[in-house]
Amino acid sequence: MYNTIGVIGLGVMGSNIALNMANNGEKVSVYNYTRDLTDQLVQKLDGQSIHPFYEIENFVQSLETPRKIFLMVTAGAPIDSVIQALLPYLEAGDVIMDGGNSHYEDTERRYQDLKTRGIGYLGIGISGGEVGALTGPSIMPGGDQEVYDKVAPILTKIAAQVDGTPCCVYIGPKGSGHFVKMVHNGIEYADMQLITEAYSFLRDILLLSVDEIADIFETWNQGELKSYLIEITTEILRKRDDLTGLPLIDVILDKVGQKGTGKWTSIQAIDNGIATSIITESLFARYVSSLKEERVAAEEMLEGPSTLHLKRNKDIYIEYVRQALYMGKICAYAQGFNQYKATSELYDWNLPLEDIALIFRGGCIIRAEFLNVISEAYKENHHLSNLLVAPFFAEKVKKYQQGLRNIVCEGIQSGISFPCLSASLTYYDSYRTGRSHANLLQAQRDYFGAHTYERNDREGIFHTDWQ
Amino acid sequence: MYNTIGVIGLGVMGSNIALNMANNGEKVSVYNYTRDLTDQLVQKLDGQSIHPFYEIENFVQSLETPRKIFLMVTAGAPIDSVIQALLPYLEAGDVIMDGGNSHYEDTERRYQDLKTRGIGYLGIGISGGEVGALTGPSIMPGGDQEVYDKVAPILTKIAAQVDGTPCCVYIGPKGSGHFVKMVHNGIEYADMQLITEAYSFLRDILLLSVDEIADIFETWNQGELKSYLIEITTEILRKRDDLTGLPLIDVILDKVGQKGTGKWTSIQAIDNGIATSIITESLFARYVSSLKEERVAAEEMLEGPSTLHLKRNKDIYIEYVRQALYMGKICAYAQGFNQYKATSELYDWNLPLEDIALIFRGGCIIRAEFLNVISEAYKENHHLSNLLVAPFFAEKVKKYQQGLRNIVCEGIQSGISFPCLSASLTYYDSYRTGRSHANLLQAQRDYFGAHTYERNDREGIFHTDWQ
Repeated sequence: MYNTIGVIGLGVMGSNIALNMANNGEKVSVYNYTRDLTDQLVQKLDGQSIHPFYEIENFVQSLETPRKIFLMVTAGAPIDSVIQALLPYLEAGDVIMDGGNSHYEDTERRYQDLKTRGIGYLGIGISGGEVGALTGPSIMPGGDQEVYDKVAPILTKIAAQVDGTPCCVYIGPKGSGHFVKMVHNGIEYADMQLITEAYSFLRDILLLSVDEIADIFETWNQGELKSYLIEITTEILRKRDDLTGLPLIDVILDKVGQKGTGKWTSIQAIDNGIATSIITESLFARYVSSLKEERVAAEEMLEGPSTLHLKRNKDIYIEYVRQALYMGKICAYAQGFNQYKATSELYDWNLPLEDIALIFRGGCIIRAEFLNVISEAYKENHHLSNLLVAPFFAEKVKKYQQGLRNIVCEGIQSGISFPCLSASLTYYDSYRTGRSHANLLQAQRDYFGAHTYERNDREGIFHTDWQ
Repeated sequence: MYNTIGVIGLGVMGSNIALNMANNGEKVSVYNYTRDLTDQLVQKLDGQSIHPFYEIENFVQSLETPRKIFLMVTAGAPIDSVIQALLPYLEAGDVIMDGGNSHYEDTERRYQDLKTRGIGYLGIGISGGEVGALTGPSIMPGGDQEVYDKVAPILTKIAAQVDGTPCCVYIGPKGSGHFVKMVHNGIEYADMQLITEAYSFLRDILLLSVDEIADIFETWNQGELKSYLIEITTEILRKRDDLTGLPLIDVILDKVGQKGTGKWTSIQAIDNGIATSIITESLFARYVSSLKEERVAAEEMLEGPSTLHLKRNKDIYIEYVRQALYMGKICAYAQGFNQYKATSELYDWNLPLEDIALIFRGGCIIRAEFLNVISEAYKENHHLSNLLVAPFFAEKVKKYQQGLRNIVCEGIQSGISFPCLSASLTYYDSYRTGRSHANLLQAQRDYFGAHTYERNDREGIFHTDWQ
């Protein structure tokens, strides 16, 4: 009897994916480069149909054909070496899936290479962390549709389910699945930073306690801001430190790490002429956070505002913060979905934007009510130029833009930095400026570099001898 | 009799460099892939020692050894093909210089390749546009010091001269010359955008006429803002359109182009963990400018602030704009010079920051009084962590930060976008925040991804089971 799917790479994510598959009725062969992780997984089993192999040849031969092999291996060279190790034992029609955070261009290279050998290759974005991997992640598969069809029954079964719909949909050709996951992570960075800035306003400007702020987040999580990130922020703020009795948040050092996907998102956008200022500011905020020693020294040297701290109506300002956060999210998601749209056009991927929003509703880190509305916006208008001009969001920002302005200005006059809220507002105001002063830039370029310009009153390309 | 230097590529920049060399006493061989540009140059000659060749072999053989060949060819594949065409006729010890805007990583590849053949290769950043090429550009040569020494007498002669010092200095190994030019262009983008935002404030918020604004820029150019970009902005604003009689600026379309170097600057910074938000926002401003049709449509859909336009004291606000512009420049240059510093450490290039500031004082697009002060700051402290904390600049921003805050807030409350001024302020306030709320981000990462955190009260790496 053959097993129905194989998993290679048995770290936490890989083990949980294998358990998830077995819990959903699959017979799973597993293999890890070193024996220890395999043994750890086997010890955790509770009757699931998971079968360990210690030789890659035996592992492959244990699978029914066409073989379906899921890699949960560190991105980069390890993926290539696993593929090389598998190749001698595979046949045309077999399918390899890469469920890690590979760069989508690497995925395309592997896809092309394996296609010439008749092996199907899918780059699969997976979001949901450890828990999601076990109980149902959001799954973004890219590659050939007919290859996807061979594994769709398994992937849709192990995905998160929202309102009876699996959070797994065929994304598009080649590396598009990993691309969609990459930008998802960029959006996630921005969302996290916006929440942090809202917290900062409540704490540093309204001078609320951590407990009061936890209550506010809990309330927000019952309204239109309802999302996984707001939910976990509430739980984080409620956690006490065992050692000191302080709120745990207050003993955590303010240095933030990052892995590759966030920066790849900004690099890809910049390289292709796509404005993603909010996502990119959230990345820079992490970079500045890492300069802890410099910041401590700079605090002594660099002065803040002299303005007095005015008494404010707390309730009104708490509502402004909520509006600012929601509008910041709209702007950040507008940028991320623009990156999908522009890249889809660039590579002719035909990305299903409304379905992408839907599969983000469950399993993944940015899951939120909000994504239903985004999906609706693209369903109503497949060629929507920007989420901001979808009727629902245009109406929403009409109500909230003044709140966002007030929050950013209060931050500025209080000397507190809100890079993503500020970038949201400058993006919003830039985007709604039909006639801007960017013509001065073009005039400068024509002056010193003869780069020419267009006119707003007639066709043609012009150059002026300025001197 | 042999000629002393050869120039390949006779577009405007190459022709002007050749004339500059001849005007400074060199005997110059010139060659172009097509005959037309060579003939054009020859017709312009006025007794200069410039000698055209129509075969690359004859061109090379006309040069004294070690041969010195300066390429002014389009960046990319054309450089490689010219090098291939030259190689059969070169000998060990000859020197090729690339004066175009090549990516510094391409320069490193060519440098390594030619080094194995005994040919010296210099990647040379040149800034100054057409006029600078003829009358004296800023020159940033990178490669082996002993190779540079062979051409230093020529390069220092043709460079701009400021206070008797040539704007040409040995930058460092490999691709460092082109790297320094690349970031120079990123800084240039930010500087241009900051000037545009200052202009926008004067025009849209203070409601001044183009002529009044030209007068203000002219006045500013007599003070600490004195620079080439302020000077040409004044001239641009004074220019009338022959066709309509309007200020020419008012008929130029607000769509801005860009070439590669600006985006390469942001990509390199992001890839290496360096915060360059102001430079990157100036790039995004160009991207948004290109969405002209979308912006015109969005203007109808997206509302601005409801605030009344208050009467303001014009003179006070004009001074605030000046302060905001100067402080924005400090922040933007701080980011650009941080990129030099961080990259220099990363590649062990030992970049001479104080000399780089000095050679930017003449010839190049960002030439300004201001660069003397930057040079002084690095001369006083070679290990300066950030320009903002140099005593001169710390004192300056102490005086100007409130003006910048006022300008950005007025923009926000008027619905006008100042992305680079805003980013300057958020960068400033982030950098001077010794203890930030970035710890909430790290707590979130630990919550959903077990990414661990550090504490602010004891050593170690910690992870919390949050649920």
